[in-house]
Amino acid sequence: MIKLIALYEKPDDPDAFWEHYFAVHAPLTMTLPGIEAVNLNRVTADAFGGEPRYVLIAEMVFPDRATFDAAMRSPENRALGQDLRSFARGIATVLVTEEASA
Amino acid sequence: MIKLIALYEKPDDPDAFWEHYFAVHAPLTMTLPGIEAVNLNRVTADAFGGEPRYVLIAEMVFPDRATFDAAMRSPENRALGQDLRSFARGIATVLVTEEASA
Repeated sequence: MIKLIALYEKPDDPDAFWEHYFAVHAPLTMTLPGIEAVNLNRVTADAFGGEPRYVLIAEMVFPDRATFDAAMRSPENRALGQDLRSFARGIATVLVTEEASA
Repeated sequence: MIKLIALYEKPDDPDAFWEHYFAVHAPLTMTLPGIEAVNLNRVTADAFGGEPRYVLIAEMVFPDRATFDAAMRSPENRALGQDLRSFARGIATVLVTEEASA
């Protein structure tokens, strides 16, 4: 399993960020070819106290590397990247991950 | 669903880090009362290039807030925190998150 995990820092305008995220960006994510699931985790606290470094951790789940690679090359992913830059420029870290066993 | 998500930056000694993580820390995580699952995501790349900010994103999954709160107050969690400080001091960010719907 391959997951693309996006970490979002606190936006300047949280209301506008969340509205755009749920109305536009999350639906665009679901159009990626081969995507299995999108898991959204809203951060409520830092376990050790203080201001959390991120407000949202979004996971895009793909069954395998070939499906992931094809999704990344798709026109849908280009549109997703353009949208990301329109509302989350400078606050999004996006990492490619592979599932490991505990 | 409540997830505790731990983000690990690159350790000074990667071999020692991974050995301790899989031999000691991951098994300790599984002892938390009420925990449903532990999902381990090893970071392979930053989607936009460059050195990834983290090497591992670990998710500890709890069914609800009450179960999570009880787990955090448990002796097992104190042991887990002690272990974390022993091998990942200064490189771990741990966030409390709630599942949101896309």
